[in-house]
Amino acid sequence: MVAVSAARTPAPSEILKLYRRVREDSRTLGAPLSDADATVQSMPDASPAKWHLAHTTWFFEAMVLGPNVPGYRPFDDSFNYLFNSYYETIGERQPRPRRGMITRPHLDTVFAFREHVDEAVERLLSSDPSPEVTELVELGCHHEQQHQELLLTDILHLFAQSPLKPAYKDPQPLPVETGGREPVSFTAFDGGIFEIGHEGNGFHFDCEGPRHRALIEPFRLADRLVTNGEWIEFIRDGGYRDPLLWLSAGWGTVTARGWDKPLYWQERDGEFWTMTLRGAQPVDPNAPVTHVSYYEADAFATWSGRRLPTEFEWEHAAEGLSMDGNFADSGHLRPKPSPRRGEGLTQMFGDVWEWTRSQFSPYPRFKPVEGAVGEYNGKFMCNQFVLRGGSCATPGGHIRATYRNFFPPDARWQFSGLRLAEDA
Amino acid sequence: MVAVSAARTPAPSEILKLYRRVREDSRTLGAPLSDADATVQSMPDASPAKWHLAHTTWFFEAMVLGPNVPGYRPFDDSFNYLFNSYYETIGERQPRPRRGMITRPHLDTVFAFREHVDEAVERLLSSDPSPEVTELVELGCHHEQQHQELLLTDILHLFAQSPLKPAYKDPQPLPVETGGREPVSFTAFDGGIFEIGHEGNGFHFDCEGPRHRALIEPFRLADRLVTNGEWIEFIRDGGYRDPLLWLSAGWGTVTARGWDKPLYWQERDGEFWTMTLRGAQPVDPNAPVTHVSYYEADAFATWSGRRLPTEFEWEHAAEGLSMDGNFADSGHLRPKPSPRRGEGLTQMFGDVWEWTRSQFSPYPRFKPVEGAVGEYNGKFMCNQFVLRGGSCATPGGHIRATYRNFFPPDARWQFSGLRLAEDA
Amino acid sequence: MVAVSAARTPAPSEILKLYRRVREDSRTLGAPLSDADATVQSMPDASPAKWHLAHTTWFFEAMVLGPNVPGYRPFDDSFNYLFNSYYETIGERQPRPRRGMITRPHLDTVFAFREHVDEAVERLLSSDPSPEVTELVELGCHHEQQHQELLLTDILHLFAQSPLKPAYKDPQPLPVETGGREPVSFTAFDGGIFEIGHEGNGFHFDCEGPRHRALIEPFRLADRLVTNGEWIEFIRDGGYRDPLLWLSAGWGTVTARGWDKPLYWQERDGEFWTMTLRGAQPVDPNAPVTHVSYYEADAFATWSGRRLPTEFEWEHAAEGLSMDGNFADSGHLRPKPSPRRGEGLTQMFGDVWEWTRSQFSPYPRFKPVEGAVGEYNGKFMCNQFVLRGGSCATPGGHIRATYRNFFPPDARWQFSGLRLAEDA
Amino acid sequence: MVAVSAARTPAPSEILKLYRRVREDSRTLGAPLSDADATVQSMPDASPAKWHLAHTTWFFEAMVLGPNVPGYRPFDDSFNYLFNSYYETIGERQPRPRRGMITRPHLDTVFAFREHVDEAVERLLSSDPSPEVTELVELGCHHEQQHQELLLTDILHLFAQSPLKPAYKDPQPLPVETGGREPVSFTAFDGGIFEIGHEGNGFHFDCEGPRHRALIEPFRLADRLVTNGEWIEFIRDGGYRDPLLWLSAGWGTVTARGWDKPLYWQERDGEFWTMTLRGAQPVDPNAPVTHVSYYEADAFATWSGRRLPTEFEWEHAAEGLSMDGNFADSGHLRPKPSPRRGEGLTQMFGDVWEWTRSQFSPYPRFKPVEGAVGEYNGKFMCNQFVLRGGSCATPGGHIRATYRNFFPPDARWQFSGLRLAEDA
Repeated sequence: MVAVSAARTPAPSEILKLYRRVREDSRTLGAPLSDADATVQSMPDASPAKWHLAHTTWFFEAMVLGPNVPGYRPFDDSFNYLFNSYYETIGERQPRPRRGMITRPHLDTVFAFREHVDEAVERLLSSDPSPEVTELVELGCHHEQQHQELLLTDILHLFAQSPLKPAYKDPQPLPVETGGREPVSFTAFDGGIFEIGHEGNGFHFDCEGPRHRALIEPFRLADRLVTNGEWIEFIRDGGYRDPLLWLSAGWGTVTARGWDKPLYWQERDGEFWTMTLRGAQPVDPNAPVTHVSYYEADAFATWSGRRLPTEFEWEHAAEGLSMDGNFADSGHLRPKPSPRRGEGLTQMFGDVWEWTRSQFSPYPRFKPVEGAVGEYNGKFMCNQFVLRGGSCATPGGHIRATYRNFFPPDARWQFSGLRLAEDA
Repeated sequence: MVAVSAARTPAPSEILKLYRRVREDSRTLGAPLSDADATVQSMPDASPAKWHLAHTTWFFEAMVLGPNVPGYRPFDDSFNYLFNSYYETIGERQPRPRRGMITRPHLDTVFAFREHVDEAVERLLSSDPSPEVTELVELGCHHEQQHQELLLTDILHLFAQSPLKPAYKDPQPLPVETGGREPVSFTAFDGGIFEIGHEGNGFHFDCEGPRHRALIEPFRLADRLVTNGEWIEFIRDGGYRDPLLWLSAGWGTVTARGWDKPLYWQERDGEFWTMTLRGAQPVDPNAPVTHVSYYEADAFATWSGRRLPTEFEWEHAAEGLSMDGNFADSGHLRPKPSPRRGEGLTQMFGDVWEWTRSQFSPYPRFKPVEGAVGEYNGKFMCNQFVLRGGSCATPGGHIRATYRNFFPPDARWQFSGLRLAEDA
Repeated sequence: MVAVSAARTPAPSEILKLYRRVREDSRTLGAPLSDADATVQSMPDASPAKWHLAHTTWFFEAMVLGPNVPGYRPFDDSFNYLFNSYYETIGERQPRPRRGMITRPHLDTVFAFREHVDEAVERLLSSDPSPEVTELVELGCHHEQQHQELLLTDILHLFAQSPLKPAYKDPQPLPVETGGREPVSFTAFDGGIFEIGHEGNGFHFDCEGPRHRALIEPFRLADRLVTNGEWIEFIRDGGYRDPLLWLSAGWGTVTARGWDKPLYWQERDGEFWTMTLRGAQPVDPNAPVTHVSYYEADAFATWSGRRLPTEFEWEHAAEGLSMDGNFADSGHLRPKPSPRRGEGLTQMFGDVWEWTRSQFSPYPRFKPVEGAVGEYNGKFMCNQFVLRGGSCATPGGHIRATYRNFFPPDARWQFSGLRLAEDA
Repeated sequence: MVAVSAARTPAPSEILKLYRRVREDSRTLGAPLSDADATVQSMPDASPAKWHLAHTTWFFEAMVLGPNVPGYRPFDDSFNYLFNSYYETIGERQPRPRRGMITRPHLDTVFAFREHVDEAVERLLSSDPSPEVTELVELGCHHEQQHQELLLTDILHLFAQSPLKPAYKDPQPLPVETGGREPVSFTAFDGGIFEIGHEGNGFHFDCEGPRHRALIEPFRLADRLVTNGEWIEFIRDGGYRDPLLWLSAGWGTVTARGWDKPLYWQERDGEFWTMTLRGAQPVDPNAPVTHVSYYEADAFATWSGRRLPTEFEWEHAAEGLSMDGNFADSGHLRPKPSPRRGEGLTQMFGDVWEWTRSQFSPYPRFKPVEGAVGEYNGKFMCNQFVLRGGSCATPGGHIRATYRNFFPPDARWQFSGLRLAEDA
């Protein structure tokens, strides 16, 4: 899931600052990786880190530099084939499930490619660029931030395949607080007609708009995320073995793949461990559960007698809340235990993506942008569920209350969890 | 897709009349079939006719007679295993993809089973039954009507696999009017807040309610269905070869399965033929296109510069329209050409199921019924799109403006077509 | 596996007698089947009974009548497509895995087809036919006998898929003698150069020749087949769980398919039952094990410290032995317990096909026959192992000491078992 | 296919020399590879170069050092899991199709592992080792030579997946001699009883013995390999489109995979190019065809009116011939055009592995060695065909006239070609 969009015009100097920060962040993310780490593709849905680093750079070359810098020479002509993702408009490309066959160029060359492009983009931004160019660069920055998150989730998936369970960073054990968890409480919201979607001022992706009215019935929303401890109760109560809790397609998936706990969990001597970006770690009962699919989130909600919120309920409740959170650039790279009570809704941003019961659909009067940058969100509006709020792998500053992420209902390798809701 | 629901209480005598008619209709539908025709399963999604005839009967035995007739002896104890569909509450059953392995009992025995159950149900209905029993029998009748439609679509699929292209009935060639097709015109609807869903008076399935308010923006709806002639233009214009027209998952499906025309179409000497319940027939350019998937319907709408309607738009437009149509019990068993103009919206009921752009989701405050009869619609609310209006294989009297059918976006073996819409 | 061959010329009257007997046998075999039983295909390797009955008839129509009877009118032109098996020379045909889609013609029509062809063949044979015609009819008879065996093994497979476990004939329980089994003893054979293969006098399939010299080292051969009781010891000793006993491909198959006992075996309350042509029956410890693959036979031999014989060892040992046995036309349709000792080699013919360690390869100077009838054995000489001796489903009179049957090493649905050998 | 065996006792000093040379050769082979090149697995049948380099080293650690050097400390305990291939006796291991997930250890660490082991093995060999140890080291050297060849074929396969078609070495274009090819001629051999297999003096793998008598009929053998030019004639004549030329399983493979030329061939503007270890190169019509499967080799032989030789014919003809050839350590790494005529049989060793028509079976009285080193050849004696003579990727000194390589009939990524034979 990678999405881009239109916007209003920001100042080139502001975008230059954004560009530098985002590009530097990617370099930092790539630093702990060897050439081999950055090359292997662990499953068709994941991409190699090298590919993420090159593809985001190719985006600037193909969309910004090529069309706007007379005489621009691509770093390497073959990269247009290698690092296009799915832009049918732009041409043939390496098939997605075979991105891991690309052992050349070396990771060092990819970093050289990045420098080559950075130089040209910075020169372009410094020379009074058109609003179109400025907006495209801004779009490219947000696009790259999306890939920063994917780079982390894809590396986690890769490292989880290795019997060595290597740590992406800081392998030392994390403290686990075994003390009591406070019970969840629910905040009530009145029904009514509310405005939903991005109002258009400031950057956003196309699928976040147009802003429009929506009718919401009264509802109540949990003040914190579902925890690992609660998930263990679900497991111990036979949640994975009772077909009546599951969607039909979910039950088919559970039985076909033998799911009986979240992705990455292992049981060792009666205790659950999980794979994290800091290597294998014990499961913290007070931290939010993550790496669960929509099917699992929905079954858990049914088991608990509640339901998942709709994306409109979530957005309405989140409006105006502070977006401080536990983001990737804070360096935690893992969901944190719930804070102490007394703060209203907590953990809305930056812990785990929250599955909603809303299938990803166009807002009224939605029209994809013309041209290659329009091949983003619209074409994925089918068999995907919306997630809200960002995760500990999302870069700070990238999230919004209107932000719509989406994944198929069986996807588990993202930092995806849930928050309960109920009718009021 | 088979669904059932709760209702208010009808008179037993009225239900007895309904029961007799529905059961007689099934017998009539089975009459042209040999034991072998009724046994073979042509794909995992389809079921043998014998299974449809027995399963609908088992429904009455397991849900109505067993719990409500003291001392009732099942016709054959093994049938509970053989003819349960997916009621996890009720027990183990023959796996769905292996329903075609059941060569015994013979079709004649299945008809004897039907008589055995009919006698008991009629006796029960004639002896002052409780409202619960009466409602369950009514539910069973509607359930059986759904299977009547599936029996026809599944037989069509089976016969299409045979190189002989046998006719289910009347194999003589159908007249094809090659004369001019009138252009489509669009009817405008104002926006506003409208009531959607079944109001609860009279039979309906659980997913049709609760009735609730919905906000609809102004829109325009085509006055007739998309025709075969228009579809041929789409084909000739390269519609199946242009990825930009397709949802991403749709394009993946088109390429993986080599789709380049609707299911059952064949090109013979430059002319299109199609398989029908009357055997192979030439494609009629003025008749509605059918046997297209959601992916194809959506791509066609994109190609034509329009979109599919939402299910709320469709229901709002259909409210109050006459439900006269071209139903299975009228004996046509095929979509008919568009009527001459001047009648407002036409072909809303009983020609082809109309794909909407709405993914199948619960209405606000929807709760599945408790117990086995609750395992119907709720558990399929994932990766399915809603279709409206009924088809030429739907029994007359079975359809409603609020009726929600649903299938996965790649399904093509139902009589599924489309009507265009656009923003006003 | 179906094979045909060249021969020397028999008398037309003798062949007419053979023809009548073989054709009558097929009719008898088809008699207990319903139209549905005869139509369903339970797996891609198996064919419907209706297909066997029609294909063997088509063989006479396409190979004998068409080319040799001026003005012969085929019974139905579509049958050439429906009932060709794999003769590339003759044209397109229904794909093998989709033979079960052919619900029409009815089984009664297939029997009418048989009568139509019988009349024409009998007339042809009675009117002084050429030696080529006579030989082709003889070939067709042997070809039909092969399909008689397949009809039985395929029906057994189909009925085993049904939870009802229907019996093809005589469902009453078989007596099981629990008394002591006599230990196996081994007969020694000297080494030397021996003649192997059919000498050419009398009917045989092409792959049985040319007769040629072969060098055989001294060996010893078990005087009876491996029994179910011995196989149960193998199971109880962990034979299915020890990778060191298995060929690498065999171990892969065992783990991928979860094999832990012969095909059709089920454990009920600690006792083994098996599916037979007489329905579900308890496993008789003194009867030969059957429905085991080459992989299992080889692993058993390794476990027992012996090996399987080569096909040359088997043929050399079988030469001159009486071919009396337990054949299909004796009506048993199941392997019988070992006879009492004192008779030298026993159970060589007509109980279970005996896996040899010989991969199916051409004899020196083997050349397939020209034309369609040459598309038989030669093209299967790859990834198949040879079996010898015939089974309880083989028609009496069809087997020879030189007869080479062959199946892939994972095939289990034939009556396939084993006899041990060792180096002397 | 990797195989090892027992032998008679060589002098430790001689083995030390062999060890040093073989180990040095592996280092040289790994030198052109990046960490990423050495990590990726391009298909389940291929292994990463890193894995080859580590597995061959692990072999010495697990089989030689662990059991024979008191107090030996493994370089890294996790390597026993990571780098075991398929020795069930020794324990669990990384599943073969997931060898490419092992991005750690780094290639540099694998080279350090090699040095660690080399030091210990050299110390052991220098301190009067037992004959068993000496023999095991010898075996390990031959085992490593087998993996040297696989390293090359697997890297070629990996690089062929990249759209960049990188060269393993020397990417400059090779000269192509378009001049006339001399016609093939056949050398006649008398029939008789001959000794086949290794006589036991000097190193060999277990499946090469025991030496035994075999009866060979008179035959004639082509004096050179089939060339690319001849293969192009086969293609142009429709060889890949005529089912009558193919084994049944071969035809199934051709159609399912869409084969119409050898692996790695591409057609560019009417000319054939192929992928080589020197990058993409034009096909040389006078060089031997390579990267063809058994199925293709057999179909070509049928098309040409000849057949493939048996492995006994090949061995008998090769006996006593010089084993000078075009081996990997000569640095060519590609098959060379046929030499000028007048030399009897040419190209018998070191160009391409020659498919024989012999399925891989045990020689009479063959018994696998006890223990882990016995899990080699015996367990692969099923669905494999024997190839003889070594290829341009085989290390010099590794080949023998009795050497039996084997691959499944659909394998194409080895340097596999063919030589024709016929009955005399």
